[in-house]
Amino acid sequence: MKVNGTPMRTIWPVEAGKVVEIIDQTRLPHEFVTTQLTTRAEAAHAISAMLVRGAPLIGATAAYGMALAMAEDPSDANLKAAHEALYATRPTAVNLRWALEEMAVLLPGLAPAERAAAAWTRAGEICDEDVGLCESIGAHGLGLITDLYAKRGGTGVFNILTHCNAGWLATVDWGTAIAPIYKAHEAGIPIHVWVDETRPRNQGASLTAWELNSHGVPHTVIPDNAGGHLMQHGEVDMCIVGTDRTTRTGDVCNKIGTYLKALAAKDNGVPFYVALPGPTIDWTVRDGVKEIPIEQRDPAEVTRIWGKTDAGALEWVIITPEGSQAANHAFDVTPARLVTGLITERGVCPASEAGLSGLYPEKRT
Amino acid sequence: MKVNGTPMRTIWPVEAGKVVEIIDQTRLPHEFVTTQLTTRAEAAHAISAMLVRGAPLIGATAAYGMALAMAEDPSDANLKAAHEALYATRPTAVNLRWALEEMAVLLPGLAPAERAAAAWTRAGEICDEDVGLCESIGAHGLGLITDLYAKRGGTGVFNILTHCNAGWLATVDWGTAIAPIYKAHEAGIPIHVWVDETRPRNQGASLTAWELNSHGVPHTVIPDNAGGHLMQHGEVDMCIVGTDRTTRTGDVCNKIGTYLKALAAKDNGVPFYVALPGPTIDWTVRDGVKEIPIEQRDPAEVTRIWGKTDAGALEWVIITPEGSQAANHAFDVTPARLVTGLITERGVCPASEAGLSGLYPEKRT
Repeated sequence: MKVNGTPMRTIWPVEAGKVVEIIDQTRLPHEFVTTQLTTRAEAAHAISAMLVRGAPLIGATAAYGMALAMAEDPSDANLKAAHEALYATRPTAVNLRWALEEMAVLLPGLAPAERAAAAWTRAGEICDEDVGLCESIGAHGLGLITDLYAKRGGTGVFNILTHCNAGWLATVDWGTAIAPIYKAHEAGIPIHVWVDETRPRNQGASLTAWELNSHGVPHTVIPDNAGGHLMQHGEVDMCIVGTDRTTRTGDVCNKIGTYLKALAAKDNGVPFYVALPGPTIDWTVRDGVKEIPIEQRDPAEVTRIWGKTDAGALEWVIITPEGSQAANHAFDVTPARLVTGLITERGVCPASEAGLSGLYPEKRT
Repeated sequence: MKVNGTPMRTIWPVEAGKVVEIIDQTRLPHEFVTTQLTTRAEAAHAISAMLVRGAPLIGATAAYGMALAMAEDPSDANLKAAHEALYATRPTAVNLRWALEEMAVLLPGLAPAERAAAAWTRAGEICDEDVGLCESIGAHGLGLITDLYAKRGGTGVFNILTHCNAGWLATVDWGTAIAPIYKAHEAGIPIHVWVDETRPRNQGASLTAWELNSHGVPHTVIPDNAGGHLMQHGEVDMCIVGTDRTTRTGDVCNKIGTYLKALAAKDNGVPFYVALPGPTIDWTVRDGVKEIPIEQRDPAEVTRIWGKTDAGALEWVIITPEGSQAANHAFDVTPARLVTGLITERGVCPASEAGLSGLYPEKRT
């Protein structure tokens, strides 16, 4: 999407086989800085230090990391070492494992001299495939927005609430939950986005606000506490969120707090949609609340907040008293009964086993 | 309650007729500083600059402000001027108006020379009455906790979730929502409190955490997003929150985000109680969602966060990109259907007109 009027991706090749460039997302929203990756070690650091984040972008970066590793040393030994080093950066990221597996299937059968070029090409394909997937989600979501807007009379601003960042910054381009919003904005529907700030890591206030602002989509940052009140008063026409993992029955694991918004949407008759690429469906899980383990992250992410001082310095501040502990559950699970529908690259379906297996018949067992 | 082992109130007389002392709550949780008020102007500033906050404490401070004003100049003209100046500090605070009305009834009939002493005495009574009210709420809430804990088998930790600060810092002592927690803690029930940080002003992370920590009640600060997940997993036995205003039908207006927690409590069968002093019931309102106007505060409270840097400085940091706007709705309304019961100084009742008029028969019309 656009930054200062120029279309961009989150990762792009600069010199074939040698240099790939990324946005350093740790500096957003206060500084827009790009960084070039020229070695496997730099790619691994970009992932582990969260210069890149979001499952699809992590996968794409890992793929380019393998290509850079093969340019450094295409031996079997380095193939194994690079795979392990990149895998260790964020071991729970599904797309990371997937992208590395793609390379593990492709590269060993090739002569070492051919590996770097083949890996570079495949990394580019992985990026393009992700863009295609996200754009399809956007197109299907646009259909929903168009219908809902028409039902409402087709006038006035259409208000969409989102949680966390499932925008183009989390993918290679378009995003998942935000893709339909960009499509609708381009289609001329007067969209306004309520952006949950998304404590504790503030991905909404920093990343979603930044990308909507950069692309020119009207939006307002709100505390996570505010969505219920806005829905009670008719100020939300639709919710769209992303997901890290969807069960075969349509339960949705997403950033902590998603469940609370889904409850409020249900209580107020607001359509609640979840956008997801098919590969994030976990066909092995039936009961998301019972079966999905929820990561507990560093409590310091709750007690310390990062931002810009009036003097322009980027600083961390502590908000809790010395002696008080904090807890930091990263995700929660929204039961399928609260989800109006799932927006996938293959179309929209009910959040149910029947719905999902209708779109992904090859996964029926 | 206790600070460093010593019982304290939030406001206390130091020298009869001349000096009253308060905790400067703007410095909490990072610095514990007390300040003496010796003039009407200092009392007014303490209220308007939010050195004191919480409806009951604002009322008590205004009462002492009138006493200090009478010590400065007990004339009729100053009676009027002081009333107006103190009223203007936080004109929407119900207890502020009430405390000033008490003084307006008491003082004009007295000879000027008697006014200062009478006002000082009445201010002390207002404080004691508030302490009595809160302690009664605590006693009735303790009954509920005792029953729920016994029902659960009477073993293990009893987890209570609260939102915002309805503790002793908001009152003269004990608090409203936290009073039952202090009572249960004193009674030896092993209480643990989940403290919602309560964005955007972080009253939970700063004030509630500070007072629980100071008194020695086990607690954990959580993002406002986390409560639903904790309830899904049986980690919350009960919610208790305060309220700024309760309708005659039992709808509850409280800090933004309360409604979301009530929805999650309902969805998971967790008892959701609201603690309130009878005077905060608004007998003129029937439909809280439709009739109660919700204050919109400065968006800078959302975009800027205050805390302590690693170097020990108290700083504000901005968390949103330049160009993104924010919205700041201060309260929301929780419909009575989501409230298990109301804890008042007269006992516990259902959140309904029948329940409330049973406890306050004099308000039946």
